[in-house]
Amino acid sequence: MTYTLIPGGNATSPTGFKAGSVHSGVKSSKDDLVILYSEYPTVATAVFTQNLAAAAPVQISREVFQQQDVRAVLVNSGNANACTGHKGLEDAHLTQQKAAEALNLKPHQVALASTGVIGLPLPMDKLLAGIPMAAEALSIEGGAKAAEGIMTTDTNPKVMAVATSINGKIVTIGGMAKGSGMINPNMATMLGFVTTDAAVDPAYLKKTFKEIVADTYNMITVDGDTSTNDTVILLAGGSAGNEIIDENHPEEAKFREALMAVNQHLAVSIVKDGEGATKLIEAVTEGFATKADARMAAKAVLNSNLVKTAIFGEDGNWGRMICSLGYSGAAFDLNQVALSLGNGQDQWVQVLEKGLPLDYDEDKVAEVLKDKLIKIHITAAAGEASARGWGCDFSYDYVKINGSYRS
Amino acid sequence: MTYTLIPGGNATSPTGFKAGSVHSGVKSSKDDLVILYSEYPTVATAVFTQNLAAAAPVQISREVFQQQDVRAVLVNSGNANACTGHKGLEDAHLTQQKAAEALNLKPHQVALASTGVIGLPLPMDKLLAGIPMAAEALSIEGGAKAAEGIMTTDTNPKVMAVATSINGKIVTIGGMAKGSGMINPNMATMLGFVTTDAAVDPAYLKKTFKEIVADTYNMITVDGDTSTNDTVILLAGGSAGNEIIDENHPEEAKFREALMAVNQHLAVSIVKDGEGATKLIEAVTEGFATKADARMAAKAVLNSNLVKTAIFGEDGNWGRMICSLGYSGAAFDLNQVALSLGNGQDQWVQVLEKGLPLDYDEDKVAEVLKDKLIKIHITAAAGEASARGWGCDFSYDYVKINGSYRS
Repeated sequence: MTYTLIPGGNATSPTGFKAGSVHSGVKSSKDDLVILYSEYPTVATAVFTQNLAAAAPVQISREVFQQQDVRAVLVNSGNANACTGHKGLEDAHLTQQKAAEALNLKPHQVALASTGVIGLPLPMDKLLAGIPMAAEALSIEGGAKAAEGIMTTDTNPKVMAVATSINGKIVTIGGMAKGSGMINPNMATMLGFVTTDAAVDPAYLKKTFKEIVADTYNMITVDGDTSTNDTVILLAGGSAGNEIIDENHPEEAKFREALMAVNQHLAVSIVKDGEGATKLIEAVTEGFATKADARMAAKAVLNSNLVKTAIFGEDGNWGRMICSLGYSGAAFDLNQVALSLGNGQDQWVQVLEKGLPLDYDEDKVAEVLKDKLIKIHITAAAGEASARGWGCDFSYDYVKINGSYRS
Repeated sequence: MTYTLIPGGNATSPTGFKAGSVHSGVKSSKDDLVILYSEYPTVATAVFTQNLAAAAPVQISREVFQQQDVRAVLVNSGNANACTGHKGLEDAHLTQQKAAEALNLKPHQVALASTGVIGLPLPMDKLLAGIPMAAEALSIEGGAKAAEGIMTTDTNPKVMAVATSINGKIVTIGGMAKGSGMINPNMATMLGFVTTDAAVDPAYLKKTFKEIVADTYNMITVDGDTSTNDTVILLAGGSAGNEIIDENHPEEAKFREALMAVNQHLAVSIVKDGEGATKLIEAVTEGFATKADARMAAKAVLNSNLVKTAIFGEDGNWGRMICSLGYSGAAFDLNQVALSLGNGQDQWVQVLEKGLPLDYDEDKVAEVLKDKLIKIHITAAAGEASARGWGCDFSYDYVKINGSYRS
């Protein structure tokens, strides 16, 4: 590895970033309002939900990222501001303006993100009172508390930071995320905020982050539902003093690797925190004609309720995996497919070769499936493309959590 | 209605059809081998799974339906003959030949369907011994027993027959189906066999049946998984003596309505029998730009684990329904969407209008959701197309049934 993990690192580990979080009253007791702020002008990019019922903050943030120099993100948890119509948009604009005033910025420099209940109006009095307090609370140590402030039903905060050197300068990348997928009513939103002090070319950053999101956040699946509020934002403040990184920078790969590591960690942390989940599942698909095929294949296996319940039951039911591969949309010849099951201890059993079951040891499979990390490795002989995705199993608690009445 | 329900009717209610079923030993005790037979030459059509890992019997039946005059269907339950490679194809061909011999037909006149465990070779000695016995057992009263012989984990047989008059002649349409979706390992297959004594034009029958399958079997969803063995077959024997029905026949609509009724009943019966299901859910989508959009919208809502668990918990969580609508792929403007929740007693509560929640009575919603049939009605103002689909809720028992080890 060409990067170093920063113990306890988070979104304010890169120089120039501050965070402030407060309890404004949207949630009953915990912090529910967070500002992430860059002291330096940024190069910024973001990826938003494809859901047609995108929430008001998503609609506004899409406009924000049409321009450059995004300097802050205002996040509230507890209320998604989705299905709130024109009033929701007006309210969101008011919070954006209030944050801009408090931070001495222009409104279009403040991105928004919300997560929580759908269909309820934002409690504007609480938010408008809380925003100046959150601005007041900004500090370079604020990253850890901010990671808790963006949580809804998450059982733990999701943070990471790494450092690497570019042109002999220390470059830091940090981040925080929330989301626990198998989750309480209307709160299945995934949010991610990544920061870096690297100096980066805007077009390069946009392209690279899009690719990394496709391989990380877009390759995790808990229940296949895409929220109205999903948002991932990357702010690059540029204070590290390195030469601007673009595709031709000699250390571009190093930066990309570190950026990938932070985002992959945050994405997998979300799946791990899936409520009701007892096992993390990693699916690797190799030998497909296109990257899109390889991704579809991995996601179909990870999304299958039949596969998820089988893994929960520690049942090496490869028939369900092949079945989901079959309807994934990926092109393959079943007579060329191999499938192996493995775990976090690197124990492996191959169960299928050229589309036919091998005479494998069922006891060995049962042993492999006892682990908390289950790996499914599928190879087709349709090409050179591969993909990796993460999901979780499906337990009684998923039904319990999601079947209980909203409260 | 322009048709009459035949009490206790099934696939051998139309004149000229016989069925025979026996216990060959694939399953431990119950019937597991069924022949459905037409005494008259048929006009026939079929729809098969899109799964790329299609089982051997599906591959062979696809060829059978390239020709006309399909006279019999050989069905075995307990073994899917899927993921069995060249050996599986050879075995399936042998059963087809054996059935042809026993019925004095050509092999290409015998279609095949299998349902059961994936990846195990067919127990050929048992099947080859059982086929002549099933042929021997053929009778016009055999339809009811046959409907039980094709079952796997189904809790009840699924049959229906209706009669109508075409050109003053009594025309009968009957059928049987199996499938319970939320189901034991590897047995999620849906099979449907529909018969009629109507005289029908081949091209008309193919087109009409395809449309009806799209509106019935393809609009039911239990867990979103498409099996390796899904098969629906329609045989028309023509002995009723009516003038050949095609698109221009003056009573075409009457025939179509009756055919639709039988297939819709069989399809909905499958969803109702979903293991672990406690409620049937019907989703109606109206006002979409295209039929495809309306169908995608209904299926996304019915497929959402979050919606399914909410209905199980009797929670009118419309936010999850709008969220799934948003990622369905259907085009709509959220500001034009209305949503109502209803039940089998025709009690209704509208919860959303023009994309915004109404000030509805939560107690009324709770009352509506106590019923065993829950209706979700969604209207967009994007066009004139509509669709209807059926699903079921998601209970603890789904996890229990599907998480237990294969045995």
